[in-house]
Amino acid sequence: MMARDRKWSILLGPVFSAVWLSTLAGAGLSPLGVRDDLHFSLEARGMNIDGSLPIYKDPNADIEDRCAALLWNRSTLSLSSHEVLIFEANFRIQGDIDGWMNMTDPLDDTLTYNQTGLEQMMEYKSGAIWAGYLAPWDKIVYAITVGQQYLMENTTLGIPAIVQSEGLHGFTDNGTTWPSPIGLAASFNAPLLTEAASTISTEAEGLGYSQLFAPVLDLSRELRWGRVEENYGEDPFLTSQMGRAYVTGVQSGRRRNVSSTAIARVAATCKHFTAYGSPQGGLNIAQVSGGQRELHTYYLKPFHYACVDALSIMTAYASYDGIPNVANTHLLTDILRNEWGYQYFVTSDAGSVDLLITLHGVCATRECAAKIALEHGLSGEMGGGTYTYLTLPDQIQNGTVGISYVDETVKTILRTKFSLGLFENPYPYPDYRSTLRTQATRDLLHQMEREAIILLENRNSVLPLSTNISSIALIGPQSDRVSFGDYVFYNASLNGISPLDGFKEFLENSSVQINFAEGCKLWSNDESEFPAAIAAAKKSDVAIVMVGTWSLDQTLLWTPGTNATTGEHVDLSDLDLVGAQFPLVQAIQATGTPTIVVFVSGKPVTNPWIQENVDAVIQQFYPGELGGLAIAEIVFGATNPSGRLPVSFPRSVGTTPVFYNYLKGSRPVSPGEITPNGTLIFGHQVKELLFYYSLNAEPVNA
Amino acid sequence: MMARDRKWSILLGPVFSAVWLSTLAGAGLSPLGVRDDLHFSLEARGMNIDGSLPIYKDPNADIEDRCAALLWNRSTLSLSSHEVLIFEANFRIQGDIDGWMNMTDPLDDTLTYNQTGLEQMMEYKSGAIWAGYLAPWDKIVYAITVGQQYLMENTTLGIPAIVQSEGLHGFTDNGTTWPSPIGLAASFNAPLLTEAASTISTEAEGLGYSQLFAPVLDLSRELRWGRVEENYGEDPFLTSQMGRAYVTGVQSGRRRNVSSTAIARVAATCKHFTAYGSPQGGLNIAQVSGGQRELHTYYLKPFHYACVDALSIMTAYASYDGIPNVANTHLLTDILRNEWGYQYFVTSDAGSVDLLITLHGVCATRECAAKIALEHGLSGEMGGGTYTYLTLPDQIQNGTVGISYVDETVKTILRTKFSLGLFENPYPYPDYRSTLRTQATRDLLHQMEREAIILLENRNSVLPLSTNISSIALIGPQSDRVSFGDYVFYNASLNGISPLDGFKEFLENSSVQINFAEGCKLWSNDESEFPAAIAAAKKSDVAIVMVGTWSLDQTLLWTPGTNATTGEHVDLSDLDLVGAQFPLVQAIQATGTPTIVVFVSGKPVTNPWIQENVDAVIQQFYPGELGGLAIAEIVFGATNPSGRLPVSFPRSVGTTPVFYNYLKGSRPVSPGEITPNGTLIFGHQVKELLFYYSLNAEPVNA
Repeated sequence: MMARDRKWSILLGPVFSAVWLSTLAGAGLSPLGVRDDLHFSLEARGMNIDGSLPIYKDPNADIEDRCAALLWNRSTLSLSSHEVLIFEANFRIQGDIDGWMNMTDPLDDTLTYNQTGLEQMMEYKSGAIWAGYLAPWDKIVYAITVGQQYLMENTTLGIPAIVQSEGLHGFTDNGTTWPSPIGLAASFNAPLLTEAASTISTEAEGLGYSQLFAPVLDLSRELRWGRVEENYGEDPFLTSQMGRAYVTGVQSGRRRNVSSTAIARVAATCKHFTAYGSPQGGLNIAQVSGGQRELHTYYLKPFHYACVDALSIMTAYASYDGIPNVANTHLLTDILRNEWGYQYFVTSDAGSVDLLITLHGVCATRECAAKIALEHGLSGEMGGGTYTYLTLPDQIQNGTVGISYVDETVKTILRTKFSLGLFENPYPYPDYRSTLRTQATRDLLHQMEREAIILLENRNSVLPLSTNISSIALIGPQSDRVSFGDYVFYNASLNGISPLDGFKEFLENSSVQINFAEGCKLWSNDESEFPAAIAAAKKSDVAIVMVGTWSLDQTLLWTPGTNATTGEHVDLSDLDLVGAQFPLVQAIQATGTPTIVVFVSGKPVTNPWIQENVDAVIQQFYPGELGGLAIAEIVFGATNPSGRLPVSFPRSVGTTPVFYNYLKGSRPVSPGEITPNGTLIFGHQVKELLFYYSLNAEPVNA
Repeated sequence: MMARDRKWSILLGPVFSAVWLSTLAGAGLSPLGVRDDLHFSLEARGMNIDGSLPIYKDPNADIEDRCAALLWNRSTLSLSSHEVLIFEANFRIQGDIDGWMNMTDPLDDTLTYNQTGLEQMMEYKSGAIWAGYLAPWDKIVYAITVGQQYLMENTTLGIPAIVQSEGLHGFTDNGTTWPSPIGLAASFNAPLLTEAASTISTEAEGLGYSQLFAPVLDLSRELRWGRVEENYGEDPFLTSQMGRAYVTGVQSGRRRNVSSTAIARVAATCKHFTAYGSPQGGLNIAQVSGGQRELHTYYLKPFHYACVDALSIMTAYASYDGIPNVANTHLLTDILRNEWGYQYFVTSDAGSVDLLITLHGVCATRECAAKIALEHGLSGEMGGGTYTYLTLPDQIQNGTVGISYVDETVKTILRTKFSLGLFENPYPYPDYRSTLRTQATRDLLHQMEREAIILLENRNSVLPLSTNISSIALIGPQSDRVSFGDYVFYNASLNGISPLDGFKEFLENSSVQINFAEGCKLWSNDESEFPAAIAAAKKSDVAIVMVGTWSLDQTLLWTPGTNATTGEHVDLSDLDLVGAQFPLVQAIQATGTPTIVVFVSGKPVTNPWIQENVDAVIQQFYPGELGGLAIAEIVFGATNPSGRLPVSFPRSVGTTPVFYNYLKGSRPVSPGEITPNGTLIFGHQVKELLFYYSLNAEPVNA
């Protein structure tokens, strides 16, 4: 955006400056970098140099009028047409907070910024600012404050940025981590998810974020895909309900001190539009095969139900029926804009406009990629590529891209910003600490952790265990590990409680002895620790074996040489337990000690022998911070297992897909019957009575 | 069709009768049941009672004029409208030769028929007659003669039936059996396939058949599906070429003593229209997911290239994008009729109109099923269901089905019959034996058997073997077995030569000792015969281990309690060798004797260890009668292996699909690289030099 020293006809007026100066004197820069002084009164916004208030700055004006006024002003500015175009391009490209702050070291807390970097970033890429880093909170609010203040005070039009981060299952900069979406979905409890999402939004809002890249509304119909854990399961209806719950929780309310026309405090981002969850061969970003029926019956349903009022939607990397989603007129324009009337900001996923050239091969040049993405309905380009939208000013000037597309696109982004009240107050809150990692959030999380756990099998009512038993063996590589799933940042697991610690805490005042033995690593075939595990089982009243899959945090997940079995880009050709885990389960079961297996995983594990042979099986999809405690509570009946499977379990990778809501005629035989015995189907839970761990021992029906 | 004693205004005239009587006196019923007397001169066809020749009986008239005349005659006949409708319905339903002959016992040779059964069958179901039985040839020609003569001489209009059988890879009533289509495709030799198909057609033609249900133009893109062996592989281009070659071979020429306007002697039937080869989960008849791009890029290509001049097309059981193919206007009317201008008979697959009710659930009644199939473009209904087309007369009379659909439908069937010359001569040939199982056909088969074999691996040029070696061990459950694949009838394999017999024959005049040991059964885990096999390998210069999959003949394939790993409705959840076969290969390889593995199978086998560890690997997709000899010739270099893979080999079922011609962007990684090492891709063959087994030992480049 143009720096303020250019001589435009609209400038921020003296009223603004006077207020600014007076409050600055009283407040100053706090030690935390938070600018309380920036939260001044609603009416004291930038006026024209003649003292009048531009309509787009008028918090009481209608949002459509404000959008129109800003677009109109643009066309009457004393700018060269090329300057106008640069100004426009600016709206559609994502910048990055690391342009003016060093975000490389997650522990660095230096509160300094690079002025040149700031100005360069804001010159071309200030439509939205990526700020999804693990960093000390003070540093984040400082960085966001610096950026927004520059835009508000040092640019002619004073248009704030949307500030973006991740919030798939918790605000990722050391906010509270919740179960992975597949676990949230297992609760089948949409109202609870609304409350959860609200806390995630609150943690982000206080720090100055205005957009979270969640929820994911892909359907888990291809289980080899690594991102199964990011979805709410296989079912369009459950996904619709949970998606809407999440959007409602994130968006409901209004930022402090903003226009009454604002309709949300943080923009949710429904992704990935659309059909991304069924890539060919389970390979991340591969094509999705399908026609109109599956599109409308399955893939579009959750977006239509949950996202028409979401302030942002993100396109999928993949193609659907051969057309890349990022430039798919049918999806982005015909359906989303024209049929559904969607009004807001549609962003690409990272680098995916460039994929039109490299992956999809539908363009040879960046100009082509920018043109077809814009003209087919993509509002904004996320970073991660070569910023193809920077080519648009020249293309518009030479007539190869129509200005009308630009107008429509800019409007969608402005609508999102006006709807967030960002023109009135784009700043972090001085008291942001009071809403981060609160006890109330932790209590709510505790409830969700309990409700996310699914009892898959319970032979002879071996569960719940009594606290009158002498001992349990806690065995397996998931026993003393915090497995959060993907979309958490560096060292997030340090905030979590492992099952071992959870059982210790739960049994603290009992006489139950915990005999812990890891038995094996998640990723190794080494069985040398089996004897210790077998011994632990033999000397215990019951053995709990915790096995499963694992993702890594975002940094490690993409680091060559690290390993994982789930998470973004970690696709599988086999869904059985890896390494020595399955032999470990068999070895413990063979001891004769009653054996309870807990799958801690991001997707179904296909070792049906386990369900058929051990005494009880519990599914805990990747939990949040209190998952280790919740599993202990479930095992000992302190709470009743009430979760249900949001995905069906195949017997093996060769019997996929197994989603329950197949088209009539498509299961001439059950895939589970190609080999003997059945599968566990969507919605499964063991319905027998369990006992609450409570003062009285009356059975309570789940 | 109406019996002749009804008083219609058109009757077969005296000229016909006179000719008939005079020739009958001279020829009589031959001992074989063949009626040479029925092959009278072209001009002596039925005339009107006034001596004039009805246009539709005029062999010199244009086919369109003949169709029009017959339809016009219908509407001016002195029939009640309901009688007309019954007459019409008759055209669109498949009858069965077992209506008047007892076809239960394949060895029964009694030449008697049931007159009541004949009349009942011809009353309502004489559009086409299913005669695809294993039976003595004399009995077949007798049955067909009786049926056609009844239609020609005892019905008013004298419209002959199309007589149908199977001919997927050989005429199924004891004709010569060729390699399964996947093997034919491996030859990559379309001209040779044309010759092969011509011999298949000739065998059927002489017996009085006028339609064969082949070729199958489905694409093998879902390898779990049991019918992979019936296709020409994964590639639309190769499938197009081979499909056209087959259609050309089957159809080219003209039946004896027929109109010069006839364009084919036997109708090929392109099936299954369309996209049938990619059922969800690999489950036979399950839905196919896809949109317009895949439809036009993959699935329609072979039909468009090979079938616009084929005299019949068969619909698929499955749905595409949710719409059952049997009632899919877009496919059957918009594309096939309107866009491609297809003129001929479109038949359902067996029982598949009923599946609109039971499988697809789109209709509650037979009336609904008949209506939507007819109105959406299906000409004729095959048996196997409840003959829903019998409801059409009432529906047309009460106005719920439009008569215009009937007219269009009848025309397509008449066009096929006129184009075959059936109105002039629908009868078996007296000398049919001279064209069945000839030496010329056998010589051609021998060439095809050789060209169908693919060398997958040849370490240290272990192949070809020299006949100067002392001994070979011939091991494995495919060594002394004839594996023909599906779509052969009862006991067909008795016509084939097993590899053991083939090696014996080939080595007859050499000093090479054959040490045979089966090692294990195809379907058992029993390893008790391993020691004998290991001993055979140890005492031999080289070990040849023949393993793979198996289909059963059509009778056994559908008999409960029999087992198979490939063939129609035998879908798999795992593509590895079953039973003790893979351990057998490992045990033989471990002896240190150079080991050659031969896969005899109907689809790729996914034990990549074999390709990586043994000395040579040969793929022989289910061969024909001379496959056992051809494999010996290849192993000893009497002929060069020139086959190429028509399907790609995945490493495991979890790495499917692996077809080579994927959409750009759909293989962000190779599926083979999810686990280490690559796969064998479409077109693969080992290109190194091998030696012809010939007088000179000069290498000849393949």
